Amino acid sequence: MTVNRQIQLASRPQGEPSADNFKLVDTTLPALAEGQVLVRNHYLSLDPYMRGRMNDGKSYAQPQPLNEVMIGGTVGEVVESKNANFKPGDKVVGMGGWQEYQLVDASQRGVLQKVDTTHIPLSAYLGAVGMPGVTGWYGLVKIINPKAGETVVVSAASGAVGGAVGQLAKVRGARAVGIAGGADKCRYVVEELGFDACIDYKEHKDVKSLSAALKAACPNGIDGYFENVGGMILDAVMLRANAFSRIAMCGMISGYNGEPIPMTAPQLILVNRMKVEGFIVSEHMEVWPEALKELGTLVATGKLKYRESVADGIAAAPEAFLGLLKGKNFGKQLVKLI
Amino acid sequence: MTVNRQIQLASRPQGEPSADNFKLVDTTLPALAEGQVLVRNHYLSLDPYMRGRMNDGKSYAQPQPLNEVMIGGTVGEVVESKNANFKPGDKVVGMGGWQEYQLVDASQRGVLQKVDTTHIPLSAYLGAVGMPGVTGWYGLVKIINPKAGETVVVSAASGAVGGAVGQLAKVRGARAVGIAGGADKCRYVVEELGFDACIDYKEHKDVKSLSAALKAACPNGIDGYFENVGGMILDAVMLRANAFSRIAMCGMISGYNGEPIPMTAPQLILVNRMKVEGFIVSEHMEVWPEALKELGTLVATGKLKYRESVADGIAAAPEAFLGLLKGKNFGKQLVKLI
Repeated sequence: MTVNRQIQLASRPQGEPSADNFKLVDTTLPALAEGQVLVRNHYLSLDPYMRGRMNDGKSYAQPQPLNEVMIGGTVGEVVESKNANFKPGDKVVGMGGWQEYQLVDASQRGVLQKVDTTHIPLSAYLGAVGMPGVTGWYGLVKIINPKAGETVVVSAASGAVGGAVGQLAKVRGARAVGIAGGADKCRYVVEELGFDACIDYKEHKDVKSLSAALKAACPNGIDGYFENVGGMILDAVMLRANAFSRIAMCGMISGYNGEPIPMTAPQLILVNRMKVEGFIVSEHMEVWPEALKELGTLVATGKLKYRESVADGIAAAPEAFLGLLKGKNFGKQLVKLI
Repeated sequence: MTVNRQIQLASRPQGEPSADNFKLVDTTLPALAEGQVLVRNHYLSLDPYMRGRMNDGKSYAQPQPLNEVMIGGTVGEVVESKNANFKPGDKVVGMGGWQEYQLVDASQRGVLQKVDTTHIPLSAYLGAVGMPGVTGWYGLVKIINPKAGETVVVSAASGAVGGAVGQLAKVRGARAVGIAGGADKCRYVVEELGFDACIDYKEHKDVKSLSAALKAACPNGIDGYFENVGGMILDAVMLRANAFSRIAMCGMISGYNGEPIPMTAPQLILVNRMKVEGFIVSEHMEVWPEALKELGTLVATGKLKYRESVADGIAAAPEAFLGLLKGKNFGKQLVKLI
């Protein structure tokens, strides 16, 4: 029998999560039933939204159940199939969870997607050509919708989502300005991703200082903001927002452990006739084909760049995830499972 | 020579404005030039937006200049005309300012509009069939866009804007819930305007209490909120907001004197995938004909009700305005000038 090592949620965090909230469990895989496919997961994606699932409170998604495998996106290879649509060797993307194998009834549409790795690396389907890329695409294209010459700011700019936002903004002729933590990340955002500027938020202790840096980096003000962080960064951006500017609210990681993150001056939404819109990309499946087509083409032609932080082995997943929540990753956080 | 008494802005307020910020000045009217029309103003409209104009800071409009007549909407009657489109006796609406007469070059389109008082009282063109009505219409129809069965909440519900919002929501089959200050206003909102419920915010000392009252009045949650006030009321509404709810930000009168009015939990915009949009009705002139047609028909047929608070004489305008900012008015605040 095949052993399938997996990470389960052992307990819910009070405030900041710790390694104790997770446990590594050896499970065994049953024989395949008709319609099922066994996938050897190659990479697990770690994403900030998982922090929300660890809580029990009301949110847009069901809480992650205790003592069950953590949910998560995966890419891998079919190793056994009792489903006519999949055969061993197929590369697939799915929601395989924090585990080495995924046994899944693949007859439900969309549960498992075959992907082409001729021009696009398998792991990219968890990043630039996957959920994070489409997340950036949706917020930028469907909410911010920048015109050429406008200025788009994105926080967590060196991450999988933020990096896509800025590069897609550049493709549309907009000025792209990142906010990231640390000089290394900022250098990467400008020199490798091609943003026009990047601000190291760690160099700014208060809203006034950060807002002044934004003024310097955005001489024509801010027309669009893609929000991944919240708190002081949001306040500083709003002070530089132009009339009719748009904020796509994707995440507010600064409040994920229950910290208060008030918006200091909501009256600016009125004064500047802003639109602020929250979204969850999985609720907009209708845009995925269009988004993935653009993202895939840009990655295959080397025009959309990204970086990966890769942890090694399923046992390393909890520490990598905790690091992600603190911004220790550099680019898309993955766990290599094989 | 005709004496034209007017109220000018004498000084800018520091915090809460006072009567000292205004002065009553006697001016004289010159003879009419070609194209000009002289209007005897019958009613002046007092509106919260004027508070913003008294400041010198950055806002969506130019500050009101010192030692000039205060801006404001007026209705009146043409008394003299050197313009082929207007003749004495015509009833008109315009931006006549806080004064008894308006001398205006009426050749510019839109500066002066003739109105029909056969079925609609002249003063209504400053309220339900004027800028306040269209403001309510725009936020409700173009931003909140309620479906039948949804719940719409509006603050300052007994006012000219709020009253229109709730009644227009009812026309669309939505549940309308008002928030107003005092039992009298709440009774009026329910019994005369036909809202389904109204909450007296003065009975609630904190967000928790107000939010509980909203829960009782909105058993299916809140799908749309028309914001005139801000602060604790906004926080309480957001705690009851449904997924995909919409907030039309029209005003935040609780912060007009510089009071801090933070939004406590902006992460709810993300959790509930909300859309929050600020707007200024004068920037959407394209909707005015459609809006005025519906509002005019509803008023003429008695289906859109409203109340007016009428101060007497131009000298009474400053005190009436200061009262408006404190919610002392009941319905649309006007000044009768003749």
